[in-house]
Amino acid sequence: MSSYMIFSLSTFSLYILSLLCSSISPISAVQSPINVWPKPRIFSWPHPLAIPLSPVFTITSPNNQYLTPAVDRYLRQALTEHHRPLITPAVNLTSTSPLQSLALTVSDLSTPHQHGVNESYALTIPADGSSANLTAETVWGAMRGLETFSQLVWGDPSLVAAGLFISDSPIFEHRGVMLDTSRNYYQVDDLLRLIGAMSANKLNVFHWHITDSHSFPLVLPSEPNLAAKGSYGAEMQYSPDDVKRIVDFGLEHGVRVLPEIDMPGHTGSWAEAYPEIVACANMFWWPAGTQWPDRFASEPGTGHLNPLNLKTYEILKNVIHDTSIMFPETFYHAGADEIIPGCWKADPSIQTFLSNNGTLSQLLEMFVNSTFPYIVSLNRTVVYWEDVLLDANVKVNPAVLPPEKTILQTWNNGPNNTKRIVASGYRAIVSSSDFYYLDCGHGAFIGNNSQYAQQPGSDQGNGGSWCGPFKTWQTIYNYDITYGLSEEEAKLVLGGEVALWSEQADPSVLDPRIWPRASAMAEALWSGNRDETGMLRYAEATDRLNEWRYRMVTRGVGAEPIQPLWCVRNPGMCNTVQPFVG
Amino acid sequence: MSSYMIFSLSTFSLYILSLLCSSISPISAVQSPINVWPKPRIFSWPHPLAIPLSPVFTITSPNNQYLTPAVDRYLRQALTEHHRPLITPAVNLTSTSPLQSLALTVSDLSTPHQHGVNESYALTIPADGSSANLTAETVWGAMRGLETFSQLVWGDPSLVAAGLFISDSPIFEHRGVMLDTSRNYYQVDDLLRLIGAMSANKLNVFHWHITDSHSFPLVLPSEPNLAAKGSYGAEMQYSPDDVKRIVDFGLEHGVRVLPEIDMPGHTGSWAEAYPEIVACANMFWWPAGTQWPDRFASEPGTGHLNPLNLKTYEILKNVIHDTSIMFPETFYHAGADEIIPGCWKADPSIQTFLSNNGTLSQLLEMFVNSTFPYIVSLNRTVVYWEDVLLDANVKVNPAVLPPEKTILQTWNNGPNNTKRIVASGYRAIVSSSDFYYLDCGHGAFIGNNSQYAQQPGSDQGNGGSWCGPFKTWQTIYNYDITYGLSEEEAKLVLGGEVALWSEQADPSVLDPRIWPRASAMAEALWSGNRDETGMLRYAEATDRLNEWRYRMVTRGVGAEPIQPLWCVRNPGMCNTVQPFVG
Repeated sequence: MSSYMIFSLSTFSLYILSLLCSSISPISAVQSPINVWPKPRIFSWPHPLAIPLSPVFTITSPNNQYLTPAVDRYLRQALTEHHRPLITPAVNLTSTSPLQSLALTVSDLSTPHQHGVNESYALTIPADGSSANLTAETVWGAMRGLETFSQLVWGDPSLVAAGLFISDSPIFEHRGVMLDTSRNYYQVDDLLRLIGAMSANKLNVFHWHITDSHSFPLVLPSEPNLAAKGSYGAEMQYSPDDVKRIVDFGLEHGVRVLPEIDMPGHTGSWAEAYPEIVACANMFWWPAGTQWPDRFASEPGTGHLNPLNLKTYEILKNVIHDTSIMFPETFYHAGADEIIPGCWKADPSIQTFLSNNGTLSQLLEMFVNSTFPYIVSLNRTVVYWEDVLLDANVKVNPAVLPPEKTILQTWNNGPNNTKRIVASGYRAIVSSSDFYYLDCGHGAFIGNNSQYAQQPGSDQGNGGSWCGPFKTWQTIYNYDITYGLSEEEAKLVLGGEVALWSEQADPSVLDPRIWPRASAMAEALWSGNRDETGMLRYAEATDRLNEWRYRMVTRGVGAEPIQPLWCVRNPGMCNTVQPFVG
Repeated sequence: MSSYMIFSLSTFSLYILSLLCSSISPISAVQSPINVWPKPRIFSWPHPLAIPLSPVFTITSPNNQYLTPAVDRYLRQALTEHHRPLITPAVNLTSTSPLQSLALTVSDLSTPHQHGVNESYALTIPADGSSANLTAETVWGAMRGLETFSQLVWGDPSLVAAGLFISDSPIFEHRGVMLDTSRNYYQVDDLLRLIGAMSANKLNVFHWHITDSHSFPLVLPSEPNLAAKGSYGAEMQYSPDDVKRIVDFGLEHGVRVLPEIDMPGHTGSWAEAYPEIVACANMFWWPAGTQWPDRFASEPGTGHLNPLNLKTYEILKNVIHDTSIMFPETFYHAGADEIIPGCWKADPSIQTFLSNNGTLSQLLEMFVNSTFPYIVSLNRTVVYWEDVLLDANVKVNPAVLPPEKTILQTWNNGPNNTKRIVASGYRAIVSSSDFYYLDCGHGAFIGNNSQYAQQPGSDQGNGGSWCGPFKTWQTIYNYDITYGLSEEEAKLVLGGEVALWSEQADPSVLDPRIWPRASAMAEALWSGNRDETGMLRYAEATDRLNEWRYRMVTRGVGAEPIQPLWCVRNPGMCNTVQPFVG
């Protein structure tokens, strides 16, 4: 922390609080006149006022490679957005001096963006037009505060909320969106738009599930054939320059880009370049006459890297090395989900191994032992899907995955698997498919499924979706990712990620499939989903989310609507005041 | 039929068939090399060939107000689209003479677009480059044939399928999409894009649910205050010029625009201009402490026209008259769904009526008797939602609705209500919410519902959606709208409509919410959902629908994807060959 930060943030907060108000009025205790999403942790605005934003408003800020572009962006937005709220904010307008400037102070300009970085900020906007102040410990906290400021500006000519103080920081350090760019391809611009919207929601990790069995779009300098042969085509690849653009864009928006090269399963696309290292590649995924447990893949298409082939590791070393160079992020996601026994069993060399009393779990452990230490040697913390330890059939001995270097991402079995992970001493990232899978509830993509041919009157079940029903924003908002954990266990939950698998998604539905549902998680993980009394605050959140969704749309993000405009304009009129008993 | 049509269509078809092939090879019996959606009824292409489309290709056609713009449009499309199929069609290319022209012959240029119009056409594309021929009885059939032709052109330089003959006509005469523009507003351009995409899918009725309790966007010359006060704002209205543009666009695309002014329920928005004619307007929809059956509305917001007030009918006469002038369509949809007893019971004048032994059904019958004859006098056939006869509580005596002037649109209870309608001698339009409601499965929009606050591990049910799960394209495709009917009863089923209610839809999701699921219904109602052996053909349809969805996207319609691109490129590899038993 540099010396010109006079107060520690908490001391400073108390000081400002004492200046502004004798009793704190949390925004949820009154009809919220201004909508900030996610809701700040501490928000004091005893007398809601708005003052003009000067047409020559400026932001003063220290210079920083990533912060300066963000300041420029937010300044331009404040001056030009002229947002028209759906409901006129219930504030008193004062025609005193307009706000001329926001002074941004950052105590530590050098801390890189990494897990656990301090994202706190404090924002004061005086009522008399004197300079607003935004203080943050890091560049990354400053960006969070700038976003909050931007949401406090509206109207044409522009007004800004005044007489307020905000002290804010996230509950959970890891708040992400996972996107699968293998099953269907997204253009670089789609990913940039996603990252920009994430930043506006104070989400900080873009978990990029880059490769899978369907395509390998990542161009790796040392292994160019993987993309050349395994991508969907030259126009559906991500070059090193593309990646740099995405990573830099992420840094300028406070969003880390966490790459996942899924392996050893989900690697069918690798076989286009290296058929010799992929077991069961390009086979029909569920051969006629076999039972479900004997299928070759969790879904079409097939392919698992062969842990017995030394060439596998030659290529992997290049893949991992290149990926670590292209992605400065210190978390590295190595996949390890859904090892399907039938696939490995279909390979002759593995058959020999198994007939000599080898097991599939040994095979996976061999694979992990041959890759994990190398990833760690590159100063990475390795994220795996929970399967690597929790799969019913194929899993490694926990001893090979030291908890200080390993994080497990949970997706099955709701809070139960989160509990199993943290109870074993591992840190967890929560992506429960029951709550956080954004693709669920849109039916299934399998091409010839007799389930579809049901007679009228039969139960439509989940509509053919394994993880249906659709996860509504309320389902996401209300999920408590530390449900059922002890206080100590809860500390090992780093945060959560909503996930969009792309079997039935591509750029045509990217925005509405993700937004505003990812916003729901963003608030729950930033400031929680409950009010001061501990009650779930989804009703109050509805009105703010309507405004926020609308603001996202006007900012160019095609978020889907959650209510008729009539409900938005008539707050409370679309509520229930009692449980449904109809 | 004009005299220059030498053969009747069926004779002509047989003649051409005998020229082209000795044995008909239906496209489904071979791997379909060209994708036409919906699949034509008779499609003979014994030796799949493609020939160049001449860069100076032309279409010769009789002049007609609506057909000529369509011909111009399809000519431009054929010359400039240069569609790149996802899978290279398995055809033999012949470099003989390119196709120079398509000769379009229409035997009857004067029949207007109305229910039951002949939409048949026959298309021949010779293999030697001599002129292709498209014959149709009507302008509207000609448009169907032009669309089919357009889907047989691809590539750059353009190729066209050749050596083929198609004879085509729809199974069902009424094939529609219903869109609700009251709960959320759509721009005129959104509606035009919808109509254009409908035309490309050979859908022929845009059922426009224009007004409801939430907003009244339709500007009526005789009752301008309804929109001036009841719309969401001046920029969210449909002026008479807008309507003319939409209706004319529909005619040029072979799509009838069927207006619905929902009444007497779903009329809360009318109260902004005429509070005196609306019972229970602007009330909280489900007052605290009341039971579900005593609520005021099926959903927020409230308002039913008061059948006891004579002023109601003065205004209605203007509304109906203006609507009939603006919409030449001979079907008129008068709503009549979801009469909620609590709403009418909340009105003092109705309370008096009821206390004098009047019933709510009498009230509805009074309303129908005061409006139905006037609509009929304007040469309209009246479409009502099924509720008017089938509601459990509030319904009219069938004697007041003569079947020759009344059509019922069914939405509850799957095939059972279709059966009840046709068994009573009425014609039916099928919009079963179990199969055809496109909004279902996205959760509920109610703002404060304790259902959302479920603990982890509890059943998520339909995800809060009353009509969940999501209706997949397969669910829609496989639904047989005459299920359980006798042959005679089935003749009374005019067709079907998929419906998008807009509680949680607006322009940001219009395209992907409707497409390609409406395409699934389009084919099922045009040429059926079964192959020659009577088996459901959803597996074969998957591959064609992938191509068709992609072509729609390149034509500017943001249809959602149904599979990973990998599945599209590897036909059959994403199928199952056995029922799921996992």
